[in-house]
Amino acid sequence: MQRMVTFTTDFGSSDHFVGAMKGVICSINPDVKIVDICNAVQPYDILDGALTVTQAYRYFPANTVHLVIVDPGVGTTRRPLVVTAEKHLFLAPDNGVLSLVYDREERLSVRHITAEHYFLQPVSHTFHGRDVFAAVAGWLSKGVEVAKFGDEITDFVRFGAPKPKPINEKLMKGIVLKVDHYGNLITNLTAKEVPQLLQTEPPAFKILVGKHEITKMKTAYAQGTPGEVFGIMGSMGYLEIATNRGAANRAVGAEKGSEVGVLLEEAVAASI
Amino acid sequence: MQRMVTFTTDFGSSDHFVGAMKGVICSINPDVKIVDICNAVQPYDILDGALTVTQAYRYFPANTVHLVIVDPGVGTTRRPLVVTAEKHLFLAPDNGVLSLVYDREERLSVRHITAEHYFLQPVSHTFHGRDVFAAVAGWLSKGVEVAKFGDEITDFVRFGAPKPKPINEKLMKGIVLKVDHYGNLITNLTAKEVPQLLQTEPPAFKILVGKHEITKMKTAYAQGTPGEVFGIMGSMGYLEIATNRGAANRAVGAEKGSEVGVLLEEAVAASI
Amino acid sequence: MQRMVTFTTDFGSSDHFVGAMKGVICSINPDVKIVDICNAVQPYDILDGALTVTQAYRYFPANTVHLVIVDPGVGTTRRPLVVTAEKHLFLAPDNGVLSLVYDREERLSVRHITAEHYFLQPVSHTFHGRDVFAAVAGWLSKGVEVAKFGDEITDFVRFGAPKPKPINEKLMKGIVLKVDHYGNLITNLTAKEVPQLLQTEPPAFKILVGKHEITKMKTAYAQGTPGEVFGIMGSMGYLEIATNRGAANRAVGAEKGSEVGVLLEEAVAASI
Repeated sequence: MQRMVTFTTDFGSSDHFVGAMKGVICSINPDVKIVDICNAVQPYDILDGALTVTQAYRYFPANTVHLVIVDPGVGTTRRPLVVTAEKHLFLAPDNGVLSLVYDREERLSVRHITAEHYFLQPVSHTFHGRDVFAAVAGWLSKGVEVAKFGDEITDFVRFGAPKPKPINEKLMKGIVLKVDHYGNLITNLTAKEVPQLLQTEPPAFKILVGKHEITKMKTAYAQGTPGEVFGIMGSMGYLEIATNRGAANRAVGAEKGSEVGVLLEEAVAASI
Repeated sequence: MQRMVTFTTDFGSSDHFVGAMKGVICSINPDVKIVDICNAVQPYDILDGALTVTQAYRYFPANTVHLVIVDPGVGTTRRPLVVTAEKHLFLAPDNGVLSLVYDREERLSVRHITAEHYFLQPVSHTFHGRDVFAAVAGWLSKGVEVAKFGDEITDFVRFGAPKPKPINEKLMKGIVLKVDHYGNLITNLTAKEVPQLLQTEPPAFKILVGKHEITKMKTAYAQGTPGEVFGIMGSMGYLEIATNRGAANRAVGAEKGSEVGVLLEEAVAASI
Repeated sequence: MQRMVTFTTDFGSSDHFVGAMKGVICSINPDVKIVDICNAVQPYDILDGALTVTQAYRYFPANTVHLVIVDPGVGTTRRPLVVTAEKHLFLAPDNGVLSLVYDREERLSVRHITAEHYFLQPVSHTFHGRDVFAAVAGWLSKGVEVAKFGDEITDFVRFGAPKPKPINEKLMKGIVLKVDHYGNLITNLTAKEVPQLLQTEPPAFKILVGKHEITKMKTAYAQGTPGEVFGIMGSMGYLEIATNRGAANRAVGAEKGSEVGVLLEEAVAASI
């Protein structure tokens, strides 16, 4: 049984890193199919890696092996993991980069990879992406059984994604999780915490970012008039702050980590 | 009949967008071959997308499916299209991004994609690249007949690329269409409007960009002396303004959209 | 016999260049497997291209065809080459971009590609990556014999990578070869010239970069305390100057080409 392989890493595209890893995989399995999800995860940013793989992995065929390498602890005692979820496999360092996968998946088997005879020898101290993870991905892609790489563990590292916090009955505070390629601000606010986000026009709330008060919600980016900043429920399931054919991050002066408030109905009425 | 798939998009490489689309395609057709033409089209820039795909598609095998997604109107009434040209297929929003393909191809069949049972459900409002276009690409790559996706239309959106304008008998004015990775200024001037561009040395014209007067034409970048800015007929078929091992855009202070004049023979003689 | 193809180029990812080349290859050989090593080699930078391919090619399967296109001399008399090493093939302009491959490989056959009937016609003056090298790569990937492309030559261009220089018995001077994606400074100093680099803690030397004196060596990036700049023997085999979860190039104000000194044991003792 052949398995395809995806890449989600912070290795960037300006060095040989990703290429060397693909070489290792192809040498073990010349028939492998490899697809990049993203190699431009922010350097060392485990949350960014977690968000990126979580937004893409479920669109791939069952039995895909997802390499998720954001690994500032390479060469220390942090463990390499192979994780089996209901339909997908994951290879990652045990630093929490799979936390959002753990959140989504009900059946999980997490194993500590210890079968060193599958590694590329000698194993460098600083590039386990190549010497450990790519090598294991190659063997997994050829159909080697997951159990052969190591035993199950339960004490794997797992963090909670930053959650919105209710400040009072009228104010919910969240943050900007990431700024996408277009400059849209992807917040951590969803309809679960703020059901009003899915209500019809006009919105019964204001969105507060820096000194900006946003009072419009749209369902398509193109509904914005020139220069207008608005909220939109995006394809990632989060409230986004956007502008039509422009970069909202520059328009409102916000960035990753910026606070975003949602001020709800009566409070909006009172403030008018 | 299997068809390969190419990507020309403005989705960038720093998010999950392109990865998620490839996942959708691979889930429908695990045997598909996917090649990126370019995912760094300038955001929202339909002309840049049109130029990019037009410079590459004809080098691919017959029956390739070219995904061309620059889609600021996603979620509005703009139509998704599948286009059959003599040897190639195209999937794109109906916003003119295929205009330069329409210009090159004699036999065209343009269809409005309406067969929603091929889409990924639910269809998001903001990411038709994944939910509509990638899904249709997957089915097309497996050999589904084009006619099954919708009916032919004739009122598709089409724009003319910016053409050079003769100001008088001696002066032709064009613009910089794009700045390439090296900083070369790709103008919209071709030998069709200015046959003198193909003449032998010394050129019977001056090229005017900003305050710079360029009087040299070369046939290879390496013919330029250090710091020299010159004209060259490039591999795209356009007059380029270039410098040897340097960035012409910085050397002459020009950018996309900058005016470029060509001052012809007698006028040059008179100005000496 | 099918051969896979890799790309190491300075064509970047913002234009159609790489896509058009892959189209040419796929048109000749629809079954080809193509993997990018890196298309972000610094523009015109032959040493950067040489370093990049040399760090990755040996991880690929035997018989892989490595396209290495950093070609500021395109359109001049510089020759296109096909090189056969013990296990790998290379296609590159004859400008030294394969010098570090020549250094590593004992059995080499270097041929001047002259069989123009394999080229894409007409051959442009400015894009041999597409019209010459990609076309030849396509035919090589299908198994065409190397000898069919041209005769062996021995006067190919070859440069020596910048070597560290002993200034006196106590001081070795090297340079920064490149800055990687994370900001690590990759120097040209190896354990061959400075065996002390492999010694145990504490290091019997100081590393001098700009006004910074670095006195710590680590074996893992994560061993660094916040803000600390240290030396580390990296996965490329070179002394790197790094900082934990940060960018060493910004921390020490150094860049590609910056001088790096290693001041050895007794000298260190004397300076305390």
